[in-house]
Amino acid sequence: MSAVNASAPTPTKAIVLVSGGLDSATVLAKALHEGRACYALSIDYGQRHRVELQAAERLAHSMGVREHRVMRVDLAGIGGSALTDMNLRVPEQATSGIPITYVPARNTLFLSLCLAWAEVVGASEIHLGVNAVDYSGYPDCRPEYINAFKTMATLATKAGVEGAPLEFCTPLIALSKVEIIRLGLRLGVDYSKTVSCYQADDEGRACGKCDSCRIRAQGFYDAGVVDPTRYR
Amino acid sequence: MSAVNASAPTPTKAIVLVSGGLDSATVLAKALHEGRACYALSIDYGQRHRVELQAAERLAHSMGVREHRVMRVDLAGIGGSALTDMNLRVPEQATSGIPITYVPARNTLFLSLCLAWAEVVGASEIHLGVNAVDYSGYPDCRPEYINAFKTMATLATKAGVEGAPLEFCTPLIALSKVEIIRLGLRLGVDYSKTVSCYQADDEGRACGKCDSCRIRAQGFYDAGVVDPTRYR
Repeated sequence: MSAVNASAPTPTKAIVLVSGGLDSATVLAKALHEGRACYALSIDYGQRHRVELQAAERLAHSMGVREHRVMRVDLAGIGGSALTDMNLRVPEQATSGIPITYVPARNTLFLSLCLAWAEVVGASEIHLGVNAVDYSGYPDCRPEYINAFKTMATLATKAGVEGAPLEFCTPLIALSKVEIIRLGLRLGVDYSKTVSCYQADDEGRACGKCDSCRIRAQGFYDAGVVDPTRYR
Repeated sequence: MSAVNASAPTPTKAIVLVSGGLDSATVLAKALHEGRACYALSIDYGQRHRVELQAAERLAHSMGVREHRVMRVDLAGIGGSALTDMNLRVPEQATSGIPITYVPARNTLFLSLCLAWAEVVGASEIHLGVNAVDYSGYPDCRPEYINAFKTMATLATKAGVEGAPLEFCTPLIALSKVEIIRLGLRLGVDYSKTVSCYQADDEGRACGKCDSCRIRAQGFYDAGVVDPTRYR
C-alpha cells in the first residue's frame, strides 16, 4: 500500500471559503469530489448570524478538509450593514437595488484573506460560492468582479509575479438555486447542517423571512425535495 | 464668521492608510495640506513592530485627522513572513528577489479595509504611501498593482456601481526616499515621531540594520538633514 501511496500524484491544494451556508457547502463538496486538498477558511467579521461559524466548522470537519481556520476581522466596528450593525433591521421582504444587508467590501476582504492563506500554504486555487443568478444584488458576486480580482491578485502576490497565478474557481456563478441544490444532493451534502438565514437564532434556526431564507426555501421547493432547514 | 463657515465647500473625505512610518506620515501631511477631511486607518495585523501602531496614533492625532481607527486582522495566525512569524529572523543585509519580510497579500488586505471604511463614511479617495522606487521589492507596491486594485474596487462596491468610483492617491509612488523626506519637511512632518524599523523595540527605537532602517537612514543622509531617528 505504501508504494501505491508514494506514487499517487500530490493533490492540488485549494483554499475554500466556507461560510456555513448552502452555497459554500456545495462548493466544498465539489472541490473534495474533484480530489482537491481543501483548506477551509471562515471569516468572523462580527456578523449577527454568528451561528453560521459553528455550522462552517461542523461542515468542514465532517466533510474532510485538511484544515479549517476562522480568521477574525473587525467589520462590525465600522458598521454600514444590517448584517454587522445591530441597530439596523434585516428586511423581511424583497427590496430593489443594493440591499442594506450588503456588507461594504466583504468579498474583497474575504478574497484578500484567502489570497494571504493561499500564499502561505502554497495553494494554487481559491474556491468560492458566489452566484450571479439567485443572489441578492450584491456587486461583488458578478463574474466581471471575480475576473478583476484575479488580475489584481496576479500583480499583488509573490506566486503571481513568479509565474504561477492563482485560479479562482466559482462553480456556482451561473447556476440557479435549484441547480445548486441538485448538484449538492448528488454530491451528498447534508443541507440540514447549513445555516443561510441572516438572523438565525443561537441554535441555528432560520427566520424564514429574510432574503436569504426566501431564496433558499424557493430553491428546495423548485427542486422538489423536502426543505431540511430548521425554522423557529 | 459663521456666514463664512457656512458657505465653505464641504471638504473631500479621504481614507489615509497610516502605518506610523515615514512614508505614510508624509502622505497624511500632503492630504491635510490639500484640505482633505482625513480618516486615518491603521492595521493591527500582528506585526512584530507593534510600536508603530502607537506612533500612528500619535501622528494622526497631532496632525489633525477627523478620526483615527485601528482595525485588527489576524495575519500572524497564518504566518509566512518575518514580520508576523517570530520564529523567522528579519534580515540585516540586502537580499535579492522578494524578501522574507514580504507579508502575503498585505496591501490587498489593507486596501480592502480602506475600501470598506470608505464606503461607510462616504469617502471618495484612498491615500496610501506605496513607493516603487526605494522600496523592498514587494509586488504590491507597483503602479500596475494599484491600477488593477482600482478596477476591481470599482466593480466591487456600491459607490463604483452607482457611478462614483473611488480615487486611489499614491503621491509617493514615483519619488525617491530623499524626495519623500524633502516633501515631508516642507509640509512640517516631525519625522522623530515616525517608526520605520521592522524590529523597533518597545520604546520605538530602531535597529539601524534592517532593510527599512537602511533605506530610511540613506534618505536622510542624501537629503543632507540630520537623521531624527532614535536608534537603540
